[in-house]
Amino acid sequence: MPNPTAAMLVIGDEILSGRTKDTNTNFLAQELTKHGIDLKEVRVVSDDADAIENAVRALSDSFEHVFTSGGIGPTHDDITADCIARAFGAHIDVRDDARALLEAHYEKSGLELNTARLRMARIPDGAALIENPVSTAPGFTIGNVHVMAGVPSVFQAMVASVLPTLTGGEPLLSQTLRVNRGEGDIAATLSVLAEDFSDLAIGSYGFQVNGVFGANVVVRGTDGGRIDAAITRLARELEL
Amino acid sequence: MPNPTAAMLVIGDEILSGRTKDTNTNFLAQELTKHGIDLKEVRVVSDDADAIENAVRALSDSFEHVFTSGGIGPTHDDITADCIARAFGAHIDVRDDARALLEAHYEKSGLELNTARLRMARIPDGAALIENPVSTAPGFTIGNVHVMAGVPSVFQAMVASVLPTLTGGEPLLSQTLRVNRGEGDIAATLSVLAEDFSDLAIGSYGFQVNGVFGANVVVRGTDGGRIDAAITRLARELEL
Repeated sequence: MPNPTAAMLVIGDEILSGRTKDTNTNFLAQELTKHGIDLKEVRVVSDDADAIENAVRALSDSFEHVFTSGGIGPTHDDITADCIARAFGAHIDVRDDARALLEAHYEKSGLELNTARLRMARIPDGAALIENPVSTAPGFTIGNVHVMAGVPSVFQAMVASVLPTLTGGEPLLSQTLRVNRGEGDIAATLSVLAEDFSDLAIGSYGFQVNGVFGANVVVRGTDGGRIDAAITRLARELEL
Repeated sequence: MPNPTAAMLVIGDEILSGRTKDTNTNFLAQELTKHGIDLKEVRVVSDDADAIENAVRALSDSFEHVFTSGGIGPTHDDITADCIARAFGAHIDVRDDARALLEAHYEKSGLELNTARLRMARIPDGAALIENPVSTAPGFTIGNVHVMAGVPSVFQAMVASVLPTLTGGEPLLSQTLRVNRGEGDIAATLSVLAEDFSDLAIGSYGFQVNGVFGANVVVRGTDGGRIDAAITRLARELEL
């Protein structure tokens, strides 16, 4: 059976302006690879209601899981939860279970649970909460969409909460062979190899270090023995 | 007049598996911001012909410029040029102008211009070449799509070649005010500010350092005086 598929949706003007580097995508990509879920597409959109809603709809229709990052805090630019509720035609308001979590948290910390903070308890009807051990305000899962915070420490904690609840497939394995020769020299060999090992994905990633050209050849698949066989044959053919 | 809009399309399994961190998006985002072109969406897709073709079509229809990264090397997994030709219904083959560049380059370096390397001269009819001062093999512009390499040094050089040829808008300016207070404490103030300065984009990016919560408030726009006014008022209202 093929592995489940997934997409990531990053929400935030700060990524698109270049002010902030998105690190959540790479973290999620690595976790999904380990868990046997194939990340097939990533989108980054701005803090714009239509852009968010359209992207959620498109990705939710095309992939088995969608993970979102960003836009669920207490400020006016945090509109993700409402957009996702709209994409699913779900009613959204402050929900008692989420409010109870925030009440306990802010009582302990001596801070006021004001109107702004209470926005973080806005959860669509029918959604399941995602635990946030870092700063309490929960994420949520509605349909096949997992809605998480943008702050990396919180995002990572939420991924750790939600991933064990999802059925994974076979972890994607990979081996890399570093070749100190230009891609153009090894392309013909790689092309035949890719045909003979069509059950594997064989990628070539050229590099240039101190004027010397080389390539990392990455062989990916779920069968370690087949990957070994492909790498061994490649090394022999390139006389490494 | 509003600034021109743009999208970025990153092509490559190595990004989606988490093996490689994409740095091209952040570089392009910063360059576009300086040049007054608004980056509105980013997509990452795998080395899959349909995925590439569909994404190019969708982004080319929705934005004034599309920049792509990855998949134009000499190996079997480099299918970007052919996919983009197909998206535009353009004929593609080895083109004389691109071949001449490669011939001169490989003659000088004493390497053979073999079949694999010649693939890098596959350019759609009607496309304009993008200069590659790093490793010669050119990118190209067809319609509103600028097709560039994935290797960061080459990508950056190609962006430097193509960006001066595009009409920019007003550079997006920004100022950041760091507030050592939780987002929930300043949300109400920010919300009123965002209404009163609706010509600016006001974003709040929470952080947590050593258990202390704070937020970077970023005010973006094209009028430096208005940004000054918003930041000054915010600092006064928060008694900073």
